[in-house]
Amino acid sequence: MKIYREPLAKMLSLVNQYTAATTDLVIEQQVRQIIETVIAKGDAALRDYSEKFDGVKLTDLKVSEEALVEAYNSLEPALKEALEVAKNNIEAFHKRQIDQSFIDLDTPGIMRGQKVTPLKRVGIYVPGGTAAYPSTILMCALPAKLAGVKEVIMVTPPQKDGIAPIVLGAAKLAGVDAVYQVGGVQAVGALAYGTESIPKVDKIVGPGNIYVATAKRQVFGQVSIDMIAGPSEIGILADETANPIHLAADLLSQAEHDKRARAILITDSEVLAHAVADEVERQLQTLPRQDIARTAIEERSFIAIMDSVADMFTLMNEVAPEHLEIQLANAMNYMSLVENAGSVFLGSYTAEPLGDYMGGPNHVLPTSGTARFSSPLGVYDFVKRTAFMQFSKERLAELAPHIATLARTEGLEGHARSIEVRFDQTKDVSVTDEAEVVGYGH
Amino acid sequence: MKIYREPLAKMLSLVNQYTAATTDLVIEQQVRQIIETVIAKGDAALRDYSEKFDGVKLTDLKVSEEALVEAYNSLEPALKEALEVAKNNIEAFHKRQIDQSFIDLDTPGIMRGQKVTPLKRVGIYVPGGTAAYPSTILMCALPAKLAGVKEVIMVTPPQKDGIAPIVLGAAKLAGVDAVYQVGGVQAVGALAYGTESIPKVDKIVGPGNIYVATAKRQVFGQVSIDMIAGPSEIGILADETANPIHLAADLLSQAEHDKRARAILITDSEVLAHAVADEVERQLQTLPRQDIARTAIEERSFIAIMDSVADMFTLMNEVAPEHLEIQLANAMNYMSLVENAGSVFLGSYTAEPLGDYMGGPNHVLPTSGTARFSSPLGVYDFVKRTAFMQFSKERLAELAPHIATLARTEGLEGHARSIEVRFDQTKDVSVTDEAEVVGYGH
Repeated sequence: MKIYREPLAKMLSLVNQYTAATTDLVIEQQVRQIIETVIAKGDAALRDYSEKFDGVKLTDLKVSEEALVEAYNSLEPALKEALEVAKNNIEAFHKRQIDQSFIDLDTPGIMRGQKVTPLKRVGIYVPGGTAAYPSTILMCALPAKLAGVKEVIMVTPPQKDGIAPIVLGAAKLAGVDAVYQVGGVQAVGALAYGTESIPKVDKIVGPGNIYVATAKRQVFGQVSIDMIAGPSEIGILADETANPIHLAADLLSQAEHDKRARAILITDSEVLAHAVADEVERQLQTLPRQDIARTAIEERSFIAIMDSVADMFTLMNEVAPEHLEIQLANAMNYMSLVENAGSVFLGSYTAEPLGDYMGGPNHVLPTSGTARFSSPLGVYDFVKRTAFMQFSKERLAELAPHIATLARTEGLEGHARSIEVRFDQTKDVSVTDEAEVVGYGH
Repeated sequence: MKIYREPLAKMLSLVNQYTAATTDLVIEQQVRQIIETVIAKGDAALRDYSEKFDGVKLTDLKVSEEALVEAYNSLEPALKEALEVAKNNIEAFHKRQIDQSFIDLDTPGIMRGQKVTPLKRVGIYVPGGTAAYPSTILMCALPAKLAGVKEVIMVTPPQKDGIAPIVLGAAKLAGVDAVYQVGGVQAVGALAYGTESIPKVDKIVGPGNIYVATAKRQVFGQVSIDMIAGPSEIGILADETANPIHLAADLLSQAEHDKRARAILITDSEVLAHAVADEVERQLQTLPRQDIARTAIEERSFIAIMDSVADMFTLMNEVAPEHLEIQLANAMNYMSLVENAGSVFLGSYTAEPLGDYMGGPNHVLPTSGTARFSSPLGVYDFVKRTAFMQFSKERLAELAPHIATLARTEGLEGHARSIEVRFDQTKDVSVTDEAEVVGYGH
C-alpha cells in the first residue's frame, strides 16, 4: 500500500485527482434509448430486455406475496435473527429523523407553516447477483416506511434460478409492498414512467452499476432520485494508539467491495503507517476476494503521514469519504472537525462493517466526494414539505404597498393588481355577496 | 378561458397530458460542449461566451464590493423599505426550518447521532434581463445564510449598461458575498468546476431558462442542485363564496410570467366558473403583459367544474401545482387534504403575489408536477447530514455474531473479519500497547 509523506498542499491536489468524475457519452446514448423504448412499449420492452441482458424469459413480472412469505420462512434461524436485530437497530435510529409539520401562530392575523407529507410511492433498486445485499433492502425500505410511504416497491434483476430467498425474505421483513423481477436501465425506466405492470413512483433509491446510475440521472426531474452512487470508500484517521491489525481489516473490508473502491488511512504516526501497510499485505493473503481488494488497495488507496491532527482533518475533509473511522484517543471530541463524510465511526470498537449491517445509521451514503453536499439516505428522503400561509385582510393591507412596489419594479403589473383589487371597493363584488367569509384575523 | 365539466377520470388523464416532459438532445449536446470548454479554458471561455451570447466584452468578472454598496444606496427609499420588510418576513419564517444535530444517549456503551453541517460554498443563478428578480435573490440567499453557509456567491448575465442596481442592491441586502457577471450555461459550468476567478461551489440554486436548467442537470453529481425549474403555475380551489374578480387577478398574476405558464381553477360552482372566465377576459384587456398572459391562459390553462370538494382535491393533487390557492370557506380546515403542492395560500386575502414577495415562505418552488416529491427551497437545502456512532467493546460483542452472519451471507468475508479480529486475543497487539484507550461504555 502506497505511503505518502508530503506537505498538505501537495496531498490536497493529489486527493483531488482521485475524485475527478467522468461521463460516458456512449452509455448515455444507450441508456436513453432503453428508457425511450420502455416508455413506448411498456411491459413488452421489459420482457425483451430481460431476455437480452439477463438471459431470463419472464412470465410474471411481479413476485407473488406467497413467494415472499415462503422465502422469509425458508431462511436459517440465525440469519432471520440477524436480520431482525438489524431491523430493530435501524428503526431505532431512523425514528429520530422523522420531521414534524410546524405552524407559526405568533402574529394575530397570520398563520404560516410547513406541512410534511410522505411520498406516495417509492421504488427501490436492488442490484442482482453477488451485489444483491439484503442489508441494503432494509436500509432503503425501513426509512421509507417510517416516513409513512404507503407503497414501497422493489425491482431486482431476474435470475435463472429465481430471485434468491434472502433477497425476497429481506424484502418481506422490511415491509416492501411489491417486488418486480426486472433490473437494469429498463427497471429504472419502468419506475419513472410506469408500465402496464409496474406503477410509476415518486422517487427511486438504491445502488446500481454505471448503467443504472446513468438511468437515474436521466430520469431525475421526472422522479426524484437519491444520489449517483460510486464505488465504496473508507477513510481512517488514526494516531499511534490505534491497532494496525484492526485498521488493516477495516481498510480491506471496503477494498473487497470493488476494484475501484478506495481505502485511505491518514495518520500522524510513521510507525503506524508502516505497520498498517505490512498488515494489509499479510491479511490480503487469506482474503477470499483478494483479487478485487488488491486492485483497490494498489490502484486507488493510500496511506498519508501528516504533521498534525489539524492537517489530517483538512485532508480528510477534502476526500469527503463515504465512511470515516476516527481511531484517535477520545474520538468523539473530534466530531466538530468533521465537515465532509457520510457516516462516522468513532473509537476502536466501532468497526465500519458494524454500520453496514446494524449500528443503526444508514449505509446508503454519499460517495466520490459528494458528502460535501449530500446526506446519508434517511427518513427525510421520503417526505416533501409544503409551505402554507393565511393572512387576514388587515395583515395583507399592511404589506400591500410594499408588494406593489416590488411587483412593479420587476415589471409584473398583474402581481400588483392581484393585491390591489382586494382593496378597491368598487370592484369588491362577489357572486354570493359572501366574499369575506374567512373570519380569522385579530 | 376553457371550461371543462367532465368526470374525474377524464380530467385526471387530461391533466396528465399537461404534465408530459420532454428533453431536447440538441440542447443537451450544446450545453455539454459549453461546460467542457469552461472546464478546459476557465475564465477565457467565460469571456468568449459572454461576448458571443450576451454581446458584452468583460474586463472584470467580479463586481466590486463598492459597486454593491453604491447600488444599494442608490435605491429609492420606498424600494429599500419594501426589500427590508421582505427580508424580515422571509427570515422570520425560514428561521423555523433550521435543523439541529441530535444524539441518542439512551443506551450505555452506544452513542449515535446526526451532525448537521452547512454547505461551505453555494452559487445562486440569477437570470438576466426582465427576469432578474430581486425577490428571488432574497429567497435564495437568505435561507443559505440562515443555514450557516460561509460563502454565498451569485452569477448573473452581464448587461451592456452594467447589472441593474436593484439586482446588485438586493444581493447586498441579502448578504451575498460575491457577485460575478457571467450567465447562461457557462456560469453553471464555472460554479460546478471552478475557474481562475470563480471558485467551485457545493450547490447551485436559482431559476433559469432551458439551457441553464439543462446545464444544472448535467452538473448534478459534481455539485448539488436545487431543482429543474419549469414555467410558473397557479392552481386555485374555490367554491361559490370566492370573489371572481380576485380569482381572475390571481390567475393572471401567474399567467403573465411566461407563455408556458399554467393557471388552473377547480371549483364546484358553475356560476363561479363562468364569472371567472368572463373576468379573466375583462382584466386581460388592460394588462401590460397581455400577450404573454393571453397565450398562457388560452393554451395552457383551464377551469374545471367538479361534483364535490373531494374530487376537486383529487384532481388538484394530480396537478401538483407550484402555487395553490384554497379559496374555500374555512380554508385551513382543508390543509390535511393537500398532498402535492409547493406553497399554499389560504383564504380570500392570501393572494399568491403575497408569497412571491413577503409572506415569509420561499417562492422558489417545485414546478411541472414535481411537488409530488420536491419541497420549496429552504434552509434544509443548504445543510447536509453526517451520521456518527460509537460502540463499546461490549456492545460490539453482542452484535458481532449477527454482523458476521450477514456479512458471510453477502459473500463479504473481509467485513466479518473486521469485526472478529477485534475479539481474537492472539491478534490483539498494538503499536503502543494502548489499543483500548477509548474508555466509554459500561
